[in-house]
Amino acid sequence: MSINPMSQDWSEVERVLEKAFTAAMELYKARGFAGRFGFGRRPALVTIDLANAWTRPGNVFSCDQTKMDTEIIPGVQALQKSARANGYPVIHVTTAYQNTNRGDPNSDLGIWPAKSPLLAMKQSDDNDLWKIDSRIAPIDGERVIIKKNASGFAGTDLHNYLTSIGVDTLLVTGVTASCCVRATVQDALAHGFRPVAVKECIGDRIPAAVQYNLFDINAKLGDVRTLNDCLDYLSSVDVRNALT
Amino acid sequence: MSINPMSQDWSEVERVLEKAFTAAMELYKARGFAGRFGFGRRPALVTIDLANAWTRPGNVFSCDQTKMDTEIIPGVQALQKSARANGYPVIHVTTAYQNTNRGDPNSDLGIWPAKSPLLAMKQSDDNDLWKIDSRIAPIDGERVIIKKNASGFAGTDLHNYLTSIGVDTLLVTGVTASCCVRATVQDALAHGFRPVAVKECIGDRIPAAVQYNLFDINAKLGDVRTLNDCLDYLSSVDVRNALT
Amino acid sequence: MSINPMSQDWSEVERVLEKAFTAAMELYKARGFAGRFGFGRRPALVTIDLANAWTRPGNVFSCDQTKMDTEIIPGVQALQKSARANGYPVIHVTTAYQNTNRGDPNSDLGIWPAKSPLLAMKQSDDNDLWKIDSRIAPIDGERVIIKKNASGFAGTDLHNYLTSIGVDTLLVTGVTASCCVRATVQDALAHGFRPVAVKECIGDRIPAAVQYNLFDINAKLGDVRTLNDCLDYLSSVDVRNALT
Amino acid sequence: MSINPMSQDWSEVERVLEKAFTAAMELYKARGFAGRFGFGRRPALVTIDLANAWTRPGNVFSCDQTKMDTEIIPGVQALQKSARANGYPVIHVTTAYQNTNRGDPNSDLGIWPAKSPLLAMKQSDDNDLWKIDSRIAPIDGERVIIKKNASGFAGTDLHNYLTSIGVDTLLVTGVTASCCVRATVQDALAHGFRPVAVKECIGDRIPAAVQYNLFDINAKLGDVRTLNDCLDYLSSVDVRNALT
Repeated sequence: MSINPMSQDWSEVERVLEKAFTAAMELYKARGFAGRFGFGRRPALVTIDLANAWTRPGNVFSCDQTKMDTEIIPGVQALQKSARANGYPVIHVTTAYQNTNRGDPNSDLGIWPAKSPLLAMKQSDDNDLWKIDSRIAPIDGERVIIKKNASGFAGTDLHNYLTSIGVDTLLVTGVTASCCVRATVQDALAHGFRPVAVKECIGDRIPAAVQYNLFDINAKLGDVRTLNDCLDYLSSVDVRNALT
Repeated sequence: MSINPMSQDWSEVERVLEKAFTAAMELYKARGFAGRFGFGRRPALVTIDLANAWTRPGNVFSCDQTKMDTEIIPGVQALQKSARANGYPVIHVTTAYQNTNRGDPNSDLGIWPAKSPLLAMKQSDDNDLWKIDSRIAPIDGERVIIKKNASGFAGTDLHNYLTSIGVDTLLVTGVTASCCVRATVQDALAHGFRPVAVKECIGDRIPAAVQYNLFDINAKLGDVRTLNDCLDYLSSVDVRNALT
Repeated sequence: MSINPMSQDWSEVERVLEKAFTAAMELYKARGFAGRFGFGRRPALVTIDLANAWTRPGNVFSCDQTKMDTEIIPGVQALQKSARANGYPVIHVTTAYQNTNRGDPNSDLGIWPAKSPLLAMKQSDDNDLWKIDSRIAPIDGERVIIKKNASGFAGTDLHNYLTSIGVDTLLVTGVTASCCVRATVQDALAHGFRPVAVKECIGDRIPAAVQYNLFDINAKLGDVRTLNDCLDYLSSVDVRNALT
Repeated sequence: MSINPMSQDWSEVERVLEKAFTAAMELYKARGFAGRFGFGRRPALVTIDLANAWTRPGNVFSCDQTKMDTEIIPGVQALQKSARANGYPVIHVTTAYQNTNRGDPNSDLGIWPAKSPLLAMKQSDDNDLWKIDSRIAPIDGERVIIKKNASGFAGTDLHNYLTSIGVDTLLVTGVTASCCVRATVQDALAHGFRPVAVKECIGDRIPAAVQYNLFDINAKLGDVRTLNDCLDYLSSVDVRNALT
């Protein structure tokens, strides 16, 4: 089982999409789409599913390992360091289930196992798959939020928590672009926050899926910004980008 | 301002994506993704943003007009007819705002106008843009739900309403694939329902956006089914596909 | 049909409760309950169900008319005036239904009609019962939020809206203490806001119900403050009560 | 620190309230309030805060110990036995926090500590206070849901979970009547479920608080039923009380 099936040259796909998206962006711009929200007054850093099932090789959920090890993890480490130094919340979101007995009509798996191999994600001490990757592990006082669906907001206290601590901007990182990251960005906007997708820190299993989902996000749902822009913001937020 | 900029041959893009997605699907299938939820016991039919701003030509929100007039509207008409005949709820979701004074810090527009030309969507009697297209208009007793963000669930009573009337399956139609339809499908799954994207009845402004968003939906978030399958289901739901 | 059945002397009930609550408060204080949240940085004024069905005499929902006319309405008028003068959002919440055909399994009434005479609350232009009392009517740009259950947050965009406009404090007024006001206060706290129940501006049909619900609120769910305190706050919020 | 301060004769309070509520109920009945929802098709049993902090003596959260030991715990044991025997979900809701450093602006405590001594409720393995009382402990496969505010629905996946498993009726038990139980009942109704408060299985610290909160619940928010009625329902649900 390989991450990228051999028969496909993804670089060709990405080249074709790049050209098509340039044309599509003309349409969007002409109609008033695809502007920039800008950063707000108080950010939080959120990682989505950077748990071992996704970050480490050999699992059904494993993502593009090269990007994970050379871009996503180092990028998140840099973001965490800056957020911690500046007092902004660092929030770790992962996925796990209390009852993975699939035949049980009272399981918290719901119907999702038909489209996602969730039986591996039992929330138990002796299962490492749902635990946050040790390279970006939570430190004392940081939230670990366990979700059961794609979005970090779905069935969690994330919206209530962010309201209570006065956050208005969400720096979103993690995997996958085509599911949980996009869902979290979408919900962040829907719930009244400024979502920022950190370009270098978002991955997938299917290379082009990062590209076309970031395209849709940037056009309609959230800002796509470079790691450097986000690091600059974290270190200078008090003098920039007021909410209104 | 044209729907499809001249410089782009979308059929080439779609052909390249078709081939790539075939390869990607092998990976998904090998890992346990992309199965089928199946239909449930009590469906509701939902249209997303099939209001004049999207269904009629000449607006900043206008979608691919050929698909709208020849596939989406006729398909929704057929689905509505069957849902009504069989007693299933027909729900019309649209987008409108009570305060479109963009400079007003208390407006319900939020920050979304930066990425979407929402100033046109004033919720007033003399503005037709947010009203449901007359070809698929609500009849007496049918819900019209006004949302302010992408998903039909965001900031609306849709989840509470569907719970109270015992619906477990959502047939989702409308526009756009890359924003409000996908967001509604994702939230339907997150909230515990069986989402079904009706293939012929979903559109966009960017042709390939229907293709890659339906690919992601089918892989992870909801079933993509033909109009005929959905019509068959609506006329025979009591003898098929029990919930458990 | 009288508001206060003749057979009951409510002043005796209130006197007995007053004494008992003094004793109960000793227990709460000794254990660390019943402190004060304090006002926050950006307030919104919310009225709950100050629509004609509740504010005017002769309806099944009519409340204690003396308190309504001499305290609640004048108090809300003063709060509205100050909130408007200082640029804080004024939000009007009412209750209405799109489908009041009770036998219809797809009605948005849900099961609540068994405990509340909601059939009167049809959301139609020619029904005045769900419309905000003209003495405290919305002005241009102010939100009117239609709910279908007790809390102003249930099935509405209130949480998302307040997040998007940076509100952290909710001044809650209206009726009834035993249902919709208490539910809104509780949800405001649950969603991360500072709820303030404005003492003179909250009513009910059962006199003691105001008393015991404000007791519970003050002990656990929200601050109960006088109208004067709230007016002072609205006119001086920028120099007081920072969020953290 | 005593549960019931010596200076107060609560039986007198309860007698006075009993008489007043009889009069109030006449008003409610004459106006169309206070009917019965009835049981639905698929129930779940929910316990609210029956964790050691509330069920055992000597804590700031401890409730009326006599009712706890002689009525609530034995009643819940009987309900659990029947729910398990009949295949209905048994759900245990408790309250805990990941960050109880009160001065930390990023704590998940929010502002609630001003009104509730939550610092005791650290979610850690070596803290027994938030764990479910061993007399009614979860068995393998049963949900334990950790909430951070009053309602079992607030910031949890309870609504999504109940939707996904097709539950329509919630048997609510636990403490306290004046806060978390009432909030859960209210949210259950708001989210489209049939809430049933099991009379013998609901407690508080203030005796009269059970009485007046169950009065409000019965009048407007949920059915108040005896333990025996609920046990009868659990053992015969398939032949009674269809949803519509």
